[in-house]
Amino acid sequence: MKGNINVSVENIFPLIKKFLYSDHEIFLRELISNATDATLKLKHLTSIGEAKVEYGNPKIEVKIDKENKKLYIIDEGLGMTAEEVEKYINQVAFSGAEEFLEKYKDSAKDSGIIGHFGLGFYSAFMVAEKVEIISKSYKDEPAVHWVCDGSPEFTLETAEKTDRGTEIVLHIAEDSLEFLEEGKIRELLTKYNKFMPVPIKFGTKTETLPLSEDAAEDAVAEIIEVDNIVNNPTPAWTKSPSELKDEDYKAFYHELYPMQFEEPLFNIHLNVDYPFNLTGILYFPKLSNNLNIEKDKIQLYQNQVFVTDEVKGIVPDFLMLLRGVIDSPDIPLNVSRSYLQADGAVKKISSYITKKVADKMVSLINENREDYDKKWNDIKIVIEYGMISEEKFFEKSDKFALYPTTEGKYFLWNELEEKIKPIQTDKDGNLVILYATNADEQHSYIQSANDKGYEVLLLDSPIVPHLIQKLETSKEKISFARVDADHINNLIKKDEPAISKLNETEKELLKKNVEESINDKKFTVQLEDLDSNDAPFTITQPEFMRRMKDMQATGGGGMFGMGGFPEMYNLVVNSNSEFASKILAAENTEEKNNQIKYALDLAKLSHNLLKGKELTDFIQRSYKQLEK
Amino acid sequence: MKGNINVSVENIFPLIKKFLYSDHEIFLRELISNATDATLKLKHLTSIGEAKVEYGNPKIEVKIDKENKKLYIIDEGLGMTAEEVEKYINQVAFSGAEEFLEKYKDSAKDSGIIGHFGLGFYSAFMVAEKVEIISKSYKDEPAVHWVCDGSPEFTLETAEKTDRGTEIVLHIAEDSLEFLEEGKIRELLTKYNKFMPVPIKFGTKTETLPLSEDAAEDAVAEIIEVDNIVNNPTPAWTKSPSELKDEDYKAFYHELYPMQFEEPLFNIHLNVDYPFNLTGILYFPKLSNNLNIEKDKIQLYQNQVFVTDEVKGIVPDFLMLLRGVIDSPDIPLNVSRSYLQADGAVKKISSYITKKVADKMVSLINENREDYDKKWNDIKIVIEYGMISEEKFFEKSDKFALYPTTEGKYFLWNELEEKIKPIQTDKDGNLVILYATNADEQHSYIQSANDKGYEVLLLDSPIVPHLIQKLETSKEKISFARVDADHINNLIKKDEPAISKLNETEKELLKKNVEESINDKKFTVQLEDLDSNDAPFTITQPEFMRRMKDMQATGGGGMFGMGGFPEMYNLVVNSNSEFASKILAAENTEEKNNQIKYALDLAKLSHNLLKGKELTDFIQRSYKQLEK
Repeated sequence: MKGNINVSVENIFPLIKKFLYSDHEIFLRELISNATDATLKLKHLTSIGEAKVEYGNPKIEVKIDKENKKLYIIDEGLGMTAEEVEKYINQVAFSGAEEFLEKYKDSAKDSGIIGHFGLGFYSAFMVAEKVEIISKSYKDEPAVHWVCDGSPEFTLETAEKTDRGTEIVLHIAEDSLEFLEEGKIRELLTKYNKFMPVPIKFGTKTETLPLSEDAAEDAVAEIIEVDNIVNNPTPAWTKSPSELKDEDYKAFYHELYPMQFEEPLFNIHLNVDYPFNLTGILYFPKLSNNLNIEKDKIQLYQNQVFVTDEVKGIVPDFLMLLRGVIDSPDIPLNVSRSYLQADGAVKKISSYITKKVADKMVSLINENREDYDKKWNDIKIVIEYGMISEEKFFEKSDKFALYPTTEGKYFLWNELEEKIKPIQTDKDGNLVILYATNADEQHSYIQSANDKGYEVLLLDSPIVPHLIQKLETSKEKISFARVDADHINNLIKKDEPAISKLNETEKELLKKNVEESINDKKFTVQLEDLDSNDAPFTITQPEFMRRMKDMQATGGGGMFGMGGFPEMYNLVVNSNSEFASKILAAENTEEKNNQIKYALDLAKLSHNLLKGKELTDFIQRSYKQLEK
Repeated sequence: MKGNINVSVENIFPLIKKFLYSDHEIFLRELISNATDATLKLKHLTSIGEAKVEYGNPKIEVKIDKENKKLYIIDEGLGMTAEEVEKYINQVAFSGAEEFLEKYKDSAKDSGIIGHFGLGFYSAFMVAEKVEIISKSYKDEPAVHWVCDGSPEFTLETAEKTDRGTEIVLHIAEDSLEFLEEGKIRELLTKYNKFMPVPIKFGTKTETLPLSEDAAEDAVAEIIEVDNIVNNPTPAWTKSPSELKDEDYKAFYHELYPMQFEEPLFNIHLNVDYPFNLTGILYFPKLSNNLNIEKDKIQLYQNQVFVTDEVKGIVPDFLMLLRGVIDSPDIPLNVSRSYLQADGAVKKISSYITKKVADKMVSLINENREDYDKKWNDIKIVIEYGMISEEKFFEKSDKFALYPTTEGKYFLWNELEEKIKPIQTDKDGNLVILYATNADEQHSYIQSANDKGYEVLLLDSPIVPHLIQKLETSKEKISFARVDADHINNLIKKDEPAISKLNETEKELLKKNVEESINDKKFTVQLEDLDSNDAPFTITQPEFMRRMKDMQATGGGGMFGMGGFPEMYNLVVNSNSEFASKILAAENTEEKNNQIKYALDLAKLSHNLLKGKELTDFIQRSYKQLEK
């Protein structure tokens, strides 16, 4: 037996209600999309001479009749004949726009037709118990009046309407009365239709005209009603970059995010036709600690219709902190994230955006280096995250990634290398790059490095351990060391003989004295022949161990279980210091112990380790000393 | 004219592909749901005597034939007759399960029927170019063979199949060959079907049996094939709490999260029939800094079918850090978040879960107070967040919210009040609750408070400013003050006369000396007649200002623009200290200045304000002093 699968209409309505647009408010976006579509189709037909009528300045009007529970969406587009209603409305899932595009393929490309008439219309039944269509085609045929109450049955009659276009009347259902509230409709228009290409009129605004000088005498203000257009049909991203000035980009930023008071740092205008279609403007915001990060996200549009501000999967992760708009008809909607990430078009879009951002960085740094340096701290988190997560971005980053020093200099990688190579290359030919993560906490170590003429980078983003790892594995013969990873003489080892004031026996005794006094397994005592002016005690923490712990703390990488290891330190004792000699010479054991403990307290202070009761005791003893 | 809206089938297939299940992998979940459905229906019919066959131990088998590009889903359920295929398969969007439920309404309630046969089946066409159904009903009718290539045309013939049940054969399309990979199918079965109620067999597992002692001689291991059941048809949450021991809950936790090695702190078994249906088990995990927070989230099931682990909107925000499962047929799927939050059933579910968590806390604290105290630091962030975000939860929190002190005591609110009322009530009758946010950094201030016999709470969650605000506005005549908000004598003002060593002229001179020496507008000098043993200098920061800033930093609340204010401090000078007298007596101005500066450095150290160059200089000076 052969047969045909049958779909009955009683089943399609609940389906639409349940699955297709579970977010009921979408109905308004769909109906206004249809109205826009009808308007742009007319524009196209008149422009190619197919429709012999005046296009004029058509608008779309949204009107509430609260008393009679009706909501109107009225357009001045091409309208429908009885035959077209039969075809486009009565045949569910038949896409009018698709057929239209097929017919006028090439000439329609640039007319910006939105798209999916047919199913969208039926979303009206999510909020209406009855829907009417009154439509007059641009063709010389009578107007029609279609009525349907959500059952598969409809009536279709001729109507009186004489002006061209389509009027949709929704008889709002009892459970959807919120859509008769002006505030609600205004909210939806702002959310979805703010930048649609046909002007949308909603409500009326009364304006008090300034009195003309002549009329000033009778002191009655002239109150007029003006059309209240709620959208901007030509938002900045639809224009060519050559038409836009810096102020225009800034103005559009505030149009997008009315609650955002700070200016963006710079913008990136996206514009590509092939192999996919995408326009948009991205902004680098000043990433201060403000509360709008969650709210003011990148917005995704399709032909100027707002779709979503959940762009995860479309925009690479590292650019999620940017703001702005992306408009592309080529991004699949209503799909899961895992699907998005696997989609070929989306992958291309994502890598196009990545490339554009890299290109912009290069042009910014070349245009005005001083200004770029100044902005670095506001943009670095994005750039650094991009470097560790996107290989292509990393490959280009030598051209725009900056490495700032604790002294406020900003180097590109090659500039840094050139600067430090002569003096920061150790005896084995490795270039050692010194860095600090906190200029305050590591101050004394930074100062020791600076005293030797070394540059110290200030790398304070949380992802720095990962960035360093990435750089070390990508570049030859370099390594990073935090300034407090060892005594500065050991961080960059040179072939210089050490001069020692003490002989081996004295050194052994000194070590024993210190170990016994401090009696703390956290510290490994390490004697070094340093300059006599260097601090007597210095606490250091080996690079590898600390970095693994840091990486685990920020997630990903590191060594499993490393987080649980106890903190271990080295206590570097300067055997050439006056203090060392004094300890060896001291006869009173108690005083010797007190002095060693005091010196250890100072070393701990320097490494941010003297805390709580230890610190309070230190301070109390010091006050007592002061009062003596 | 009247007419009927017509939906033609050519349009429904692309619709299904495009909108309904854009995540292609869903097809397997849908087909296994259908198979489960058919099996459970049979179970129900045999149990009520409607089907006169042996139910047995039916399973579902999934099989890959990679060579011929076929994927099989085979069940031993009730099967379909030709008539039923016509009805359930050939009529799209006709839900077999719905009709079944309608017919056997009451008796079917507890049989756990999954639900939406009909549309789900067609999701097969997302990955298959041809689909076959070979089915033998439990009724005495011939088996049928249905074939369809995704066009609306199908063939239906009799088949040879003799054993009861339905076999679905998918001829996988070229663009979906990944679904012929064993690894992919296993991944999907684990993701969606891990806890489905009918055993699912996938692939075969070869097992090497241990040699029996008798056979040990010939040393050839016996290799046998055993059924590989990939799911657990009776997961813990489907059982009654009385059947489960603590170990069972823990074992299920690890079954849910195989990569999670730590034990959960405790669990909450959810079980409600009315006014909605919900079962589940929630776990309080130890919230360490581990990487799985993002990954191991609460999972949502519907009748043992995995739906999602995005439970935002269903579970109250403050419980999002918990783990576990929720199983409910009453949660609307495929809907937007804003819709979820407005849905009545979801609201009830959310408040039921909140109530259950509060009840569990009460029973835990009553069962074993010591153990509860120990767990507090691991659960407090959840509880405290609940207290500030859910009014109902806050109202009950006096029964289970703990207030720990810096000395490791844990008080309930009424215990705290009782303990501190006698001595921490100020002269105006207000109960002053002292707190610290960091026991290390605020150590000296805590010690001063403890010296007076006061309790100091340790409130170190980031949301503490909000919690304090909430408590202050909800309770009568209490206020919170951080220990370093003022000198302890001023934080809890008593009617005790201050004794002053200095006269007014001396005080004025002392103040002038200090102000001139420190010469820093950040500090407001404030003379106080304190105990002569109290520190000469103490830095304090007024509560209100600091709290507003803290609130802004953690988002929400606080005063707008407060974040930008400079940090301002009071420098409390103890006019009764030895040091004050010493300063007044000093004749050498330079020495006086040095001493005041040194005392200020110590006060700064105590308030964590001596940093960077200032700290390095302090340490260097101290080392020099030591070497003298």
